[in-house]
Amino acid sequence: MGGDLAPLEAVKGVRQYLAQSPEAHLLLLGDEAQVAPLLAEHDLPAGAYTFVHTPQVIDMHEHPTKALREKQRSSIAVGFHLLATDKIDAFISAGNTGAMLVGSLYSLKPLEGILRPTISTIIPKENGGTGLLLDVGLNSDCKPEQLNQFARMGSIYAETILGIENPRAALLNIGEEESKGNLLAQAAYPLLKSNPALNFTGNVEGRDILLNRADVMVCDGFTGNIILKLCESLFGITQQKGIDHDYFQRFNFENYGGTPVLGISKPVIIGHGISREHAFHNMILLAQKMIYTGVMQQMSI
Amino acid sequence: MGGDLAPLEAVKGVRQYLAQSPEAHLLLLGDEAQVAPLLAEHDLPAGAYTFVHTPQVIDMHEHPTKALREKQRSSIAVGFHLLATDKIDAFISAGNTGAMLVGSLYSLKPLEGILRPTISTIIPKENGGTGLLLDVGLNSDCKPEQLNQFARMGSIYAETILGIENPRAALLNIGEEESKGNLLAQAAYPLLKSNPALNFTGNVEGRDILLNRADVMVCDGFTGNIILKLCESLFGITQQKGIDHDYFQRFNFENYGGTPVLGISKPVIIGHGISREHAFHNMILLAQKMIYTGVMQQMSI
Repeated sequence: MGGDLAPLEAVKGVRQYLAQSPEAHLLLLGDEAQVAPLLAEHDLPAGAYTFVHTPQVIDMHEHPTKALREKQRSSIAVGFHLLATDKIDAFISAGNTGAMLVGSLYSLKPLEGILRPTISTIIPKENGGTGLLLDVGLNSDCKPEQLNQFARMGSIYAETILGIENPRAALLNIGEEESKGNLLAQAAYPLLKSNPALNFTGNVEGRDILLNRADVMVCDGFTGNIILKLCESLFGITQQKGIDHDYFQRFNFENYGGTPVLGISKPVIIGHGISREHAFHNMILLAQKMIYTGVMQQMSI
Repeated sequence: MGGDLAPLEAVKGVRQYLAQSPEAHLLLLGDEAQVAPLLAEHDLPAGAYTFVHTPQVIDMHEHPTKALREKQRSSIAVGFHLLATDKIDAFISAGNTGAMLVGSLYSLKPLEGILRPTISTIIPKENGGTGLLLDVGLNSDCKPEQLNQFARMGSIYAETILGIENPRAALLNIGEEESKGNLLAQAAYPLLKSNPALNFTGNVEGRDILLNRADVMVCDGFTGNIILKLCESLFGITQQKGIDHDYFQRFNFENYGGTPVLGISKPVIIGHGISREHAFHNMILLAQKMIYTGVMQQMSI
């Protein structure tokens, strides 16, 4: 039921996925009156899914914690309950982002040794490659050890899911030298440098974010969220100006499907509010890959 | 002597300026052996400047504090001495940025009531307008009251120098609501909101930076520096990809000349390391405007 275009685009995404993965079985959560006619209309193969009626909807503007507590029969609340009780292996929604984060933090067990879960974004590099930036908003104030853990989780994700071999991890900073930065960056640098689980390449600056200088870039969630949203805005601005170049097409974050929450026991994927068919299809494929590779379990310490 | 293209481009910029402002008198600081032949070659009118021989040069990679102390006969050290002793009204250099900042902080008196000086950058808005973002690197860790002062200094600069009437000041944040953000943003919001010297419009997010949502945007210098350098990189990336659009031309920060240090007693303008003729010309015009409007004195509290 989540997202501005729900539930139609989700149904179309599921159909697209099932057409290519006929062996899969999905649980679809939503308001039966709205969803059932769409499932029929789009000819979803009956044996490929189980429908779960969730009559309540958490609005995009509701307070996450309050809404989750009060709307226990919403698709998001039911989804987390199914995930926490091992009825499903991964959970995907393009609904209220805050509720998805609150559910991830409080319905699921954090991974052994992980201080705080994190969310990341794909960064389209100008050479055609893909980078990962994290945290992008779950942790607006961070401790140095959290950045160190983000770098490790991001590196595992980059290697296992993005297919980047021995990914280069870097600290996003305001200078190249080790001594540069705010108090957080200065304290995080030696932790990253001495972490044997990382291929640490030092600091990168703002000018390096879109260049091929590092594969995994870590920062606090305040800085990361501002970068993410600034990058997102480039797609709209270039479209509006009629600049129709492949590179800026890659800033259309709709294409990527969604962002997984890293550092929890099972895959949770948070979709963009304006996710369409293709994005939902990609999110299901991402969840499938995360389940098969066991990427989350690799992250426990 | 400062900048990658010194001293030739500085000399050409001075000539460009003097051609349009024959009544002005400039002090030119540099190594005589290198500069004198250029002044002759470019036919600078002899009465329009006084040349001051400064035999030492602070390299782009030297440690700022150490270099300023040890190279008292460098153009930067002499410039700050002349400024502090009222021999000149403004000082411009495209040299070692760190040395320019250290000189601004320690050679000059801070303005009455100002906790910390700040540096800003021009933000090219997608509607053709111009915004101001500050701090962009002088203060990597900030206190809430500093952000409040940056907003006020930025508003005075935007109104007096950029010609924006009653500029809208905003807090750069990771959500629209007052309660959002990291600890700094949460504490700064009520200060900005209750500051009668501001036309405060609330929070702006990363996606709003390039849009016409606010004229003056404040953040800590860590976040601001990363945004500045990310924006700067867009010019090079679009050039490299053959995207030759007016909008991205405006991300060529060379055009703007340089950034003034706000909150000190006299104008100091720090040029980009690769400043050319046109940038030097613009920096002198900016210094002139800052002197005539008395913008710095307006900022004392």
